Amino acid sequence: MAGGPGGERVLRMSQNQSTLARLMRLHGDVRVDFMTSPALEGNALGDPAQRPLAVYLPPHYDPQGSKRYPVLYCLHGYTGDVAGLLATRPWESNVVQRIDRLIARQQMPAALLVIVDGFTRLGGSQYVDSIHNGNYATYVTRDVIAHVDRDYRTVASEGGRAVFGKSSGGFGSLHLCMNYPGFFSAFASHSGDAYFRYADPPLFVQAQRTLEKHQWDIAKFVEQFEDANKRPQSDYSTMEFLGYTSAYSPRSATPFDFDLPFDRSTGEIRDDVWARWLAFDPAEICTQKKPELSRLRLRYLDCGRRDEYSLDVGARVLAARMREMGLDVRHEEFDDDHRNVGYRYDVSLPALAGVLERS
Amino acid sequence: MAGGPGGERVLRMSQNQSTLARLMRLHGDVRVDFMTSPALEGNALGDPAQRPLAVYLPPHYDPQGSKRYPVLYCLHGYTGDVAGLLATRPWESNVVQRIDRLIARQQMPAALLVIVDGFTRLGGSQYVDSIHNGNYATYVTRDVIAHVDRDYRTVASEGGRAVFGKSSGGFGSLHLCMNYPGFFSAFASHSGDAYFRYADPPLFVQAQRTLEKHQWDIAKFVEQFEDANKRPQSDYSTMEFLGYTSAYSPRSATPFDFDLPFDRSTGEIRDDVWARWLAFDPAEICTQKKPELSRLRLRYLDCGRRDEYSLDVGARVLAARMREMGLDVRHEEFDDDHRNVGYRYDVSLPALAGVLERS
Amino acid sequence: MAGGPGGERVLRMSQNQSTLARLMRLHGDVRVDFMTSPALEGNALGDPAQRPLAVYLPPHYDPQGSKRYPVLYCLHGYTGDVAGLLATRPWESNVVQRIDRLIARQQMPAALLVIVDGFTRLGGSQYVDSIHNGNYATYVTRDVIAHVDRDYRTVASEGGRAVFGKSSGGFGSLHLCMNYPGFFSAFASHSGDAYFRYADPPLFVQAQRTLEKHQWDIAKFVEQFEDANKRPQSDYSTMEFLGYTSAYSPRSATPFDFDLPFDRSTGEIRDDVWARWLAFDPAEICTQKKPELSRLRLRYLDCGRRDEYSLDVGARVLAARMREMGLDVRHEEFDDDHRNVGYRYDVSLPALAGVLERS
Amino acid sequence: MAGGPGGERVLRMSQNQSTLARLMRLHGDVRVDFMTSPALEGNALGDPAQRPLAVYLPPHYDPQGSKRYPVLYCLHGYTGDVAGLLATRPWESNVVQRIDRLIARQQMPAALLVIVDGFTRLGGSQYVDSIHNGNYATYVTRDVIAHVDRDYRTVASEGGRAVFGKSSGGFGSLHLCMNYPGFFSAFASHSGDAYFRYADPPLFVQAQRTLEKHQWDIAKFVEQFEDANKRPQSDYSTMEFLGYTSAYSPRSATPFDFDLPFDRSTGEIRDDVWARWLAFDPAEICTQKKPELSRLRLRYLDCGRRDEYSLDVGARVLAARMREMGLDVRHEEFDDDHRNVGYRYDVSLPALAGVLERS
Repeated sequence: MAGGPGGERVLRMSQNQSTLARLMRLHGDVRVDFMTSPALEGNALGDPAQRPLAVYLPPHYDPQGSKRYPVLYCLHGYTGDVAGLLATRPWESNVVQRIDRLIARQQMPAALLVIVDGFTRLGGSQYVDSIHNGNYATYVTRDVIAHVDRDYRTVASEGGRAVFGKSSGGFGSLHLCMNYPGFFSAFASHSGDAYFRYADPPLFVQAQRTLEKHQWDIAKFVEQFEDANKRPQSDYSTMEFLGYTSAYSPRSATPFDFDLPFDRSTGEIRDDVWARWLAFDPAEICTQKKPELSRLRLRYLDCGRRDEYSLDVGARVLAARMREMGLDVRHEEFDDDHRNVGYRYDVSLPALAGVLERS
Repeated sequence: MAGGPGGERVLRMSQNQSTLARLMRLHGDVRVDFMTSPALEGNALGDPAQRPLAVYLPPHYDPQGSKRYPVLYCLHGYTGDVAGLLATRPWESNVVQRIDRLIARQQMPAALLVIVDGFTRLGGSQYVDSIHNGNYATYVTRDVIAHVDRDYRTVASEGGRAVFGKSSGGFGSLHLCMNYPGFFSAFASHSGDAYFRYADPPLFVQAQRTLEKHQWDIAKFVEQFEDANKRPQSDYSTMEFLGYTSAYSPRSATPFDFDLPFDRSTGEIRDDVWARWLAFDPAEICTQKKPELSRLRLRYLDCGRRDEYSLDVGARVLAARMREMGLDVRHEEFDDDHRNVGYRYDVSLPALAGVLERS
Repeated sequence: MAGGPGGERVLRMSQNQSTLARLMRLHGDVRVDFMTSPALEGNALGDPAQRPLAVYLPPHYDPQGSKRYPVLYCLHGYTGDVAGLLATRPWESNVVQRIDRLIARQQMPAALLVIVDGFTRLGGSQYVDSIHNGNYATYVTRDVIAHVDRDYRTVASEGGRAVFGKSSGGFGSLHLCMNYPGFFSAFASHSGDAYFRYADPPLFVQAQRTLEKHQWDIAKFVEQFEDANKRPQSDYSTMEFLGYTSAYSPRSATPFDFDLPFDRSTGEIRDDVWARWLAFDPAEICTQKKPELSRLRLRYLDCGRRDEYSLDVGARVLAARMREMGLDVRHEEFDDDHRNVGYRYDVSLPALAGVLERS
Repeated sequence: MAGGPGGERVLRMSQNQSTLARLMRLHGDVRVDFMTSPALEGNALGDPAQRPLAVYLPPHYDPQGSKRYPVLYCLHGYTGDVAGLLATRPWESNVVQRIDRLIARQQMPAALLVIVDGFTRLGGSQYVDSIHNGNYATYVTRDVIAHVDRDYRTVASEGGRAVFGKSSGGFGSLHLCMNYPGFFSAFASHSGDAYFRYADPPLFVQAQRTLEKHQWDIAKFVEQFEDANKRPQSDYSTMEFLGYTSAYSPRSATPFDFDLPFDRSTGEIRDDVWARWLAFDPAEICTQKKPELSRLRLRYLDCGRRDEYSLDVGARVLAARMREMGLDVRHEEFDDDHRNVGYRYDVSLPALAGVLERS
């Protein structure tokens, strides 16, 4: 109970608010739809095609009204999901509580915020189309947007949409803007995966050690992981590795059939597979994406200077490359590490909403 | 998405389920009521008297039916609240998901589970009546129980109720059973606060250092804490200390007016105030509570043998004392620390439900 | 190689210097004597009665000359020994290198520095007379001082001697000055053990858990510890606990025959044994030691404000008590923890040498 | 005092032993020579050309006798030096204590052990010839060997010499055997630097952040580092980075004039400089060193499977490459990390001594 950070004590709860909105003590409201995505059907991991979709509605939103709102699409990070981003923590504000407060304080224009569920059995999809995981990029850009534009009063065009997220969610934002032009007109990547050369190889070694212990039976490793009460940190990083592998170097639609980016027996890097990973690295490919990046109204990057995955380097490389292409970038750094940097949304959300079209 | 631990893949979602129940993928349902407690009104901290109350309803629960259910009251730990206990985490099960699975698998009789909100601005009430915080023991035993028995189909008697929780929730369970007889007929204390002589003095030193830096202006410390984006671990433990102080040695109904259990200038323990804390220590007072303990149908204690607060000693002392009084105790230890031990509910919930009256 | 901190590049090595002095790049010299102490003979642990004793000699020291020097007796901490204090570390200065530099820079008067070996099979003696460990207080005050005054050109009187040390060495300094008056005229306790009520109980719990795992066979635990290639941190803290127990609550001269300060089965504190420990606590007993403390020329205490053993509280309590007795104390705090605070010798050594008699 | 691991209680101290030998409680003896190396004169860092050299002499070694001994050359790791390797720690054995015990127990043939000093102002030379640091490979292979063969009774030929070490000392052993054939006939690399692709890039990011904070004034950073009482971990890893840079990509004999393997402004890897580093990586170059490797009598590699620098992969790659070349390798893994693995000398020293020529 008690006010969260900022000490909002005056609340306007309404009987019309959802339970979740009341638990979050919102001025606006939040809904959860359960939508089915054709893009996710029949995936090898057996993840559901029906997904929750959280939609934040600002105060005064009227489903029958004539006003239309821009939409900020939020992509969660690795191990996140819709339920996770709706969770609250004492003395902290989640992304919904933040946008609600920003709008209530008139620090940004009213907007919808949509939280997309990109979780998989391996912890996350990276929002890419994968022969193994399912087509998560298509799910977001085609199925989710269609659902939102159909059921809510949105500015239903590229100019009315932005995409943002943290960590893998930041990566997803970059990936969708660079490879699926025409859906979003702005992105904010907070501590987003970029410059894989620093971020990813440390995961390889841990995974090589762990999977060797499991005789390279990935299915069994995953099952044991799921069934365990507690797990060592190395098991978590191995799952993270498998999540990325299933996204970047899948081999087929057979469960757990991936190309590993290292040699099983020694652990040394396999440059052929590694090249497939690097083809997803925003820092590597951005120079080939000038048309896609140029059409954006805002390119926002930030990262903590103590990021454990060295993603501050990724953001710097991205910013430098875009500027070399003649594009403006908003690039900020701050003194923090990779975790619990949601307070940065107080910077990015007003910036994103500020460039979008309103009705 | 994907199945959680245990791999429940078959789901029976219904349009009648609440959004929360669907996000948790329950067989049963979960409701959140917002009830107002007279016991909490006008407290010095300014915490709301209106609180959320989560009620889990098992499959086939019929509000119009004739069947009545026993009720397990769940008390969260320090920094917990209702929203926190309803949150989900990837590859983990919260207490609601656990009881739902246990009932669905017929590993325990059907029961309601009620999550009580005992959060305060200082992070938690310890479920005690405090001149400063408000009367949280009365709130639970009088106001919450009355609400539940009025609005749900319960076995509305001592024999139909148990109370349990982890950490401060385990403490609360012990506290209420020892000091408020007649409401509950069983408790389960998981890693519950007991034997303060080990658990609490380490907090004193940290608090002395932190509060001295803040010139002993507790109100200002708390405000800065609430407003911060990030906080050092020592600030969290100082808040925890203040939470306990406000419960065990409040001085008045003036905000932040407590007696500290240490000398401000040196940090040495003040034995007079410390004695007031020890009067709340279950391990110290249990020998005076034989009548209250004797009427219980089940006394359940467990703790990890690597508990960072040494609460395994507390559980051992409690178990030994009760046995010396001629009372049966179920006492278990396991190889783990204080955190993320929710898997222990799979042991305690069937045990509690097994001794309660059913209609 | 390369200059250490402070960048002393000009060296005056001499063929007369010892190998150790050349490795340390000293201006002066250092000798190691191997002396036999009657006080240590026949101890239950089987520790040798012959001990190394390191003696630092300042530049221009002349064993045939007429000049006599005050002596600073250095007591190492728990797990320390003479060899350990003579070890060097890159970019750091040990206590011998520090006094040598202070004298060379004329930041303190020339003095001898003697390092006493108080190690035992359990990691340290606390410099107390123990029926079990041997009489380490007598060893220092009788045997070591006699050896030094006989073989070196010292000011051979109370006024020419000070004692100092860190952690258990600080404790030893306090213990010897409070209980063996007439030998030293000044002490410096750096992060010295005091206020056991905070410092020691956390060790009890760990020891209870560890020794229970070893079926309370202490001899076997110690042997396994000694034979292991690697040991968990809990084994180290259990050894530390045993070291203190053998000093504070020994039961007999039979190996490993101690009174434990906790109940074996539950871990709760045994107040009778605990009282024997507290009788060694400088913070508890100092008020009864006014005559012994009054005769000192300097009482020096310091401690880091992040000390993991809460010894900053101990130093504060000691300083407060002495001031209440009307005694001057030099008491300093600094922003650091318990480890690697040798730079504080740059403050204490000049202060100690400054009050001692010189010839 | 007290016996170390293994419990050697019977000691044969002699008045002829050096002080160091007595402090270490050796059966044999240890000497420290201070020799001047022409190869190190005039280096840019200002490190001394005169270096200590520790020589372990087994029991019964007779400088006037006719018996000649094989010599094991020990290369310390980064931040090590001769004094550091002679230091003792409670309950541990250093490399000299280990060889002494192995010989005393007749677990290996008698041999000399020589500890070479390869420290620099930046923490270590990697034992390579560097235009900036000085010619440490030449120093070892030419100056040190000549000194030892002149002053001690050695088998003064390739067949009588082995080289070994841990971490950077393991790297040095590999480097000297691969690039300076004819001096040693066996090596043991314990957790030796290899497969830089995993081990080194994590250092780059930390160094980029740290040096940017110091405005790229490396000299000033180093001076501040040397003068500090305490330093953050990131400063240590930046020093480590500078140590490697000064060895692998020096630019000139001007102090602190290196080529950094990353772009200053972004931190991204500079592949041209990185290639110069990789040219020192044993895992990269070993395939070109078949003649040098073939002449060896023993190739010994081991590494812990939890090595923080991923050097277990390096050892695996090396072992695989050598086997592909048709060379035998002794390759062992163990369940430990990078630190305190001196117990592995109990395996490697007998193996090395076993293949060397004896008189």
